Amino acid sequence: IAHRAGVHWSTVSRVLNPQTRTMVSSEVAERILKIAESVGYQRNRLAVGLKTRRSFTVGMIVPDLTNPVFPAIVRAVEHVLGAEGYVTVLADSDRSRETETAIIGSMRARQVDGLILATAHLQDNIVAQCRKDRTPFVLVNRTTLETDVSSVASNDDRGIHRVIEHLVGLNHRRIAFVGGPLDTSTGFSRRNAFVAALQEHRLKVDHKAIVDSQAFTIESGLAAGREVLRAHRRITAIVAANDMLALGCYDALNEAGLQCPQNISVTGYNDMPFADRFNPPLTTVRIPLEDIGQQAAQLLLRQMRNPETPATAVLLEP
Amino acid sequence: IAHRAGVHWSTVSRVLNPQTRTMVSSEVAERILKIAESVGYQRNRLAVGLKTRRSFTVGMIVPDLTNPVFPAIVRAVEHVLGAEGYVTVLADSDRSRETETAIIGSMRARQVDGLILATAHLQDNIVAQCRKDRTPFVLVNRTTLETDVSSVASNDDRGIHRVIEHLVGLNHRRIAFVGGPLDTSTGFSRRNAFVAALQEHRLKVDHKAIVDSQAFTIESGLAAGREVLRAHRRITAIVAANDMLALGCYDALNEAGLQCPQNISVTGYNDMPFADRFNPPLTTVRIPLEDIGQQAAQLLLRQMRNPETPATAVLLEP
Repeated sequence: IAHRAGVHWSTVSRVLNPQTRTMVSSEVAERILKIAESVGYQRNRLAVGLKTRRSFTVGMIVPDLTNPVFPAIVRAVEHVLGAEGYVTVLADSDRSRETETAIIGSMRARQVDGLILATAHLQDNIVAQCRKDRTPFVLVNRTTLETDVSSVASNDDRGIHRVIEHLVGLNHRRIAFVGGPLDTSTGFSRRNAFVAALQEHRLKVDHKAIVDSQAFTIESGLAAGREVLRAHRRITAIVAANDMLALGCYDALNEAGLQCPQNISVTGYNDMPFADRFNPPLTTVRIPLEDIGQQAAQLLLRQMRNPETPATAVLLEP
Repeated sequence: IAHRAGVHWSTVSRVLNPQTRTMVSSEVAERILKIAESVGYQRNRLAVGLKTRRSFTVGMIVPDLTNPVFPAIVRAVEHVLGAEGYVTVLADSDRSRETETAIIGSMRARQVDGLILATAHLQDNIVAQCRKDRTPFVLVNRTTLETDVSSVASNDDRGIHRVIEHLVGLNHRRIAFVGGPLDTSTGFSRRNAFVAALQEHRLKVDHKAIVDSQAFTIESGLAAGREVLRAHRRITAIVAANDMLALGCYDALNEAGLQCPQNISVTGYNDMPFADRFNPPLTTVRIPLEDIGQQAAQLLLRQMRNPETPATAVLLEP
């Protein structure tokens, strides 16, 4: 380009970097940009990244891409970040901490500028590591026990209270709970909210009617649903800690020859895509998936631009 | 590290690169690796990439991550590539060619080693560009008109023939078709197969009972389903070109106060996750999603390792 334009290469370099372009006369800059375009010049992001220590890449890790809540959140994140010139590197940890650690290592080696994590545990090594390294990050959907961490989640306590109000209003009194992993904020706080809400309605809390699962999956919901039905034939409703677990409860009812809602009602949590199309349509708590993704991306952008931005914990109303 | 080990920096460099490590005595190499570990040394992938022109990153573009077929394919791709040390950069083009072009540009700037595209059109500029640039790529699910392109898809002709056989066996004679975009291989070949299969069964092909959609979405399926019902109250079955369109047809039937399957049967295509849980469970054609993802990743690995690998078009049986 310098040869064709008849200028020194450092002039070309100045023009091709938007931040130093004004150091060159606009007439020369225009000529150089035209030649650059004609020869198909593209900035090498790796080279730029090496020098500026910025890759304009954000890593996002989800625990299970086949749970339809995550594609909806991912899409919102990608749209917001994409509009600001960032590419989102998405990875699915398949609920394995080992896989997640490998992914993080690989993302670090590629110098991601920030992370969006939908995989947080209440006590989370990866979160602790990010804080230590001062890597900008935002948690989505789940949070940790640590304060001073940026996150966007929904108010689980409020959501479960709404579910119990709804069921009590329909005269349910013997209500079981199929919970999620207790080392996640969503598993932990939805379970606590369930017990608290029963007590507020002066209903007996029968701990045999509370079954915790190892994962937020249909398979875990089926196993827990079976256990609930084995121990408690007289329950009239099952509150599941998310929609995938609720689908597993549907399967457990089917197996036992019981009908939902004629024999036993089932509620979910998340209002994931397709929840209204199941048989029967699932009663569930809507969390604003698009909003969660958008706000998480915006928080991360602020942190990447100014590392001194204070941590913000956003709690959305279900 | 050189300072601590008491050696020249070039010795450290040789040891830290696995390909030149044997040039240094194993005693020295071990000492250097121990120090490197103790100071938390990590290879900078950007720097390595700049020198070796390999980023160990693969770009994958899907047209719509909220269609559950894609997370299932993505997960299989990530597992195979991850085991070989590659990170998958996933992006959702939201069915926009403009967005897709922007994504590709951004991925190129980050020097992805290869691409997996679920977004192909029959005539595809992006595919043409990849061929010109000799970027390794594999198409999944959809193919193009060009031969000599690597792809993994399912046999659409076979699948639609099976659907018509099934419906004719149930005594359906007046069958409508809700098709996908005709500029995609899946839209084009499923429509052609529909017409061919009717003719083989000596059924009348009524072109007013064939409605093509602009997108493989629930909304498009609803619009097309309405059109079919407006024109043809006497049909007894609707063949939809994929499951999302079929769900839209469910909605059109509901609106018109018709029941599936009592009044009109509906079939889909893909057997996407949750298809068996809809009301009624969807009759559909299973395509092997995990297999598609795995084989695409394996084809791409072979091409990235040896650019002279001949193109392979894999057609899986539905």
